[in-house]
Amino acid sequence: MNRTSSSRNAEPRVRRSPGQRTASAPPVSVHVEREQDELLYRQVYRELVELIRSGRLRPAARLPSSRVLAQELGIGRNTVLLALEHLVSEGYVETRRGQGTYVAAELPDRTPFRSDAQADVRPRPLDLPERARSLVSPAHRPVTTSGLLRPGEPGYAGFPFKLWARLLWESWRQPQRRLLDGSHAAGYPPLKAAIADYLAAVRSIACTANQVIVVSGIRQALTVAARLLLDRGDAVWLEEPGYPPLRGPLVAAGAKLVPVEVDGEGLSVRAGQRAAPRPKLICIVPAHQYPLGITMSEARRRELLDYARQVDAWIFEDDYDSEWWYGGRILPAVQSLDRDGRVIYAGTFSQLLFPSIRLGYAVVPTHLVEPFLAAQQALDDQPSMLVQPALARFIADGHLATHLRRQRQRYKIKQELMLAAAQRHLGGLLELSADPGGMQLVGYLHADLLARMDDVEAGRRAAAAGFAAHVLSAHWMGTAQRQGLILGYAALPERQFDTVVSRLARALS
Amino acid sequence: MNRTSSSRNAEPRVRRSPGQRTASAPPVSVHVEREQDELLYRQVYRELVELIRSGRLRPAARLPSSRVLAQELGIGRNTVLLALEHLVSEGYVETRRGQGTYVAAELPDRTPFRSDAQADVRPRPLDLPERARSLVSPAHRPVTTSGLLRPGEPGYAGFPFKLWARLLWESWRQPQRRLLDGSHAAGYPPLKAAIADYLAAVRSIACTANQVIVVSGIRQALTVAARLLLDRGDAVWLEEPGYPPLRGPLVAAGAKLVPVEVDGEGLSVRAGQRAAPRPKLICIVPAHQYPLGITMSEARRRELLDYARQVDAWIFEDDYDSEWWYGGRILPAVQSLDRDGRVIYAGTFSQLLFPSIRLGYAVVPTHLVEPFLAAQQALDDQPSMLVQPALARFIADGHLATHLRRQRQRYKIKQELMLAAAQRHLGGLLELSADPGGMQLVGYLHADLLARMDDVEAGRRAAAAGFAAHVLSAHWMGTAQRQGLILGYAALPERQFDTVVSRLARALS
Repeated sequence: MNRTSSSRNAEPRVRRSPGQRTASAPPVSVHVEREQDELLYRQVYRELVELIRSGRLRPAARLPSSRVLAQELGIGRNTVLLALEHLVSEGYVETRRGQGTYVAAELPDRTPFRSDAQADVRPRPLDLPERARSLVSPAHRPVTTSGLLRPGEPGYAGFPFKLWARLLWESWRQPQRRLLDGSHAAGYPPLKAAIADYLAAVRSIACTANQVIVVSGIRQALTVAARLLLDRGDAVWLEEPGYPPLRGPLVAAGAKLVPVEVDGEGLSVRAGQRAAPRPKLICIVPAHQYPLGITMSEARRRELLDYARQVDAWIFEDDYDSEWWYGGRILPAVQSLDRDGRVIYAGTFSQLLFPSIRLGYAVVPTHLVEPFLAAQQALDDQPSMLVQPALARFIADGHLATHLRRQRQRYKIKQELMLAAAQRHLGGLLELSADPGGMQLVGYLHADLLARMDDVEAGRRAAAAGFAAHVLSAHWMGTAQRQGLILGYAALPERQFDTVVSRLARALS
Repeated sequence: MNRTSSSRNAEPRVRRSPGQRTASAPPVSVHVEREQDELLYRQVYRELVELIRSGRLRPAARLPSSRVLAQELGIGRNTVLLALEHLVSEGYVETRRGQGTYVAAELPDRTPFRSDAQADVRPRPLDLPERARSLVSPAHRPVTTSGLLRPGEPGYAGFPFKLWARLLWESWRQPQRRLLDGSHAAGYPPLKAAIADYLAAVRSIACTANQVIVVSGIRQALTVAARLLLDRGDAVWLEEPGYPPLRGPLVAAGAKLVPVEVDGEGLSVRAGQRAAPRPKLICIVPAHQYPLGITMSEARRRELLDYARQVDAWIFEDDYDSEWWYGGRILPAVQSLDRDGRVIYAGTFSQLLFPSIRLGYAVVPTHLVEPFLAAQQALDDQPSMLVQPALARFIADGHLATHLRRQRQRYKIKQELMLAAAQRHLGGLLELSADPGGMQLVGYLHADLLARMDDVEAGRRAAAAGFAAHVLSAHWMGTAQRQGLILGYAALPERQFDTVVSRLARALS
């Protein structure tokens, strides 16, 4: 007979003698799997809830002891006890001292358990407004498919997670009330101070901790800045080609996006002047332009600041990749040249530590601090405090500096390995050349490959082979001028470059 | 002679004999303070950087040993060593085996350290667009002043922080790659599943884990929903009086805000029909309306859903306070009555655990999941993964259910203590009456007090006495119909009610 029916038979016996101890309660058909995404505690809990709600375990039926259940399921007894505690707290089961655990005689008032939830919902037709369709356009959404050679993905092996976990533990076992009550609207003060010091030291940023506002990332910083500084229809210069996710916040603010050509010195002020002479905002990635990897020259930075002053435009500086610099000295941030408070500087820890940390910062001119905070709170409120004390310690104690120094050495070597492997395997397919910084290289389609396919097709084939390389032409708002694949090398272990790159070659051949 | 000059004298001696060990290096004038917001490591680091950058510690000058510094400053030696490690990693100092620590002969290329950062910046005049001025209007911003009787502030004493810290530690000491690489765009799958189960059990929400989208809070949920579902100028019904922070996201989306009177059964459909017959979105707080504490009747819920179907409007259900219910049974969420997928349900953990956790969830109709995620990513990207695995464990292991059960008992008692203390002290000042749920009570201004002042003045006096009670009249968009103070009682320790309430009475007398 199957286990389920046996548990059904159990019920009357228990009913007859609720006080009597039974040597062994009937087995219950509970099934758990050690999937990584599924918590064992939860599986046991849900299986039992389903057995109870479906009536296969009747009211007042006795459950096997936690020991028996643990043995049957081959899991720890604590796991079972936690599941039972959950069931007790929700009133599904009750424990009787010295007599074991029983399904509650009266079940809590609940909707019948439905794995086919909402099966009976007939959705209204979905007609989104036009402006929403442009907002959710895939054209300016991040590509986060995981896979080989994904651009912007850092190497995780180098991160000191044991230390990280300890810092989190230390910062939460006895938190101060002010850490809990949401009073640090602009961010945890020691983190703001640590970021200000860090930026002063490595990016020549001149700011007080008060100008540092903790945000969830570059996109939130731009969403707030755009909604605060732009009127509908205001022109915004964007680098062409550029980083597509920067478009979303500007589209959302109703701005007029103006793609501006990038030349060897960075965003071309003259080209912008021709396209839209009076931009209200200029978005730049000057340290290491994405995706082309150009560094904006000092002359161009001054030309840009002069023009911004002339037409009274704001500048949004995304300091992407400035931390990953292997060659000589990297130019200070454009913010450090700003003398009339028109630069909003933004950075993120997602590429320095790991993407899912989702924590960044905006450095805003003094007179913009209050309005920026007000807009941030109107749209969302402050980012979670959870990580901020640990991150403050991580920076202030020098662990960030140490981590970056080590990663820089690793990435430099990885770029060399990437170039060497490309030499060996990508001849006639992709053309790569050395870059003084960054976490990725553009592999431009060789004429021979270009004769057979464009980079969209090349990207499709790479994806089919397990690669998450990005398609270069997708980074133009207008007609693409170059064809290539953006190859991230930071996350790939040293020993795998040769095999992975040869695999890419096969996918493209 | 002062310490600074002595360290200056040290330099040539070191230059002359870099190899020779000196018995004792000259003292360095470093000053640290044990402020809670200032990390000791960082203070030592910054003091030394300043001494070095300012030249008071010359290149190649020898530093005192970490032991000596630790003794001088009266702090732990590890603290000093961490500061030194930071300095070494940034190239300010170098250690010579067996010879101690020296200021680097060549300082790293840095801007001169300026505590008067941006002193030379002459800010451009700040002329924000009109629509920005309305966005940042204090009228719809959260009041987060910390103080006594702050509405919405939970009791922290009851929260198991030791367990919480352990869960954080466990989830980060050896994280899986997928937890790091940002591939869980809609939230950590076990957390989504745990939330779906929790909502099915306690709120009769019928949804799959796929419909649960992790957000930073109610405001982000509404910001995304509004930007996605509304066209500029679309009418949105808002409860009058209501929760002011719900207005920001709607203003940001360019919606037409329509305040709709709340009667004894909740938001009045008839009043809304008169004010704006064809709303595109209806925002409700049906479980325990804020600030009046009304529960929307079952009849009204069905009337509202029928009307929404009739005019094809979306409904945004903020399930605020549904967890805090002391009387009999609480009505299931409006979402559970929705049969054509027009309800967006939102909840947050900020009031359940602690405000700074900044984590909530939206439950959206199946056909809205993808567009919602796309809009969320266009505006901001996913919320941080940092807390999600720990929170998933916290819920799935039953700790949330246990915590809520205990808090419910505490809050029930606290409300009774509040009412008793009001009886004793607030006669002729504020009138409070029992509420079957929630974390706060409205103290309506008694006629005698009203004769002397309005609630704004009463709030001002209370604030001056250290209270964070909110002003009731500020919750109307139109003319306020009632005058009162909103008094949060959840965070106040039991034994303090009498003294605190009598203190409030004195402030108002």
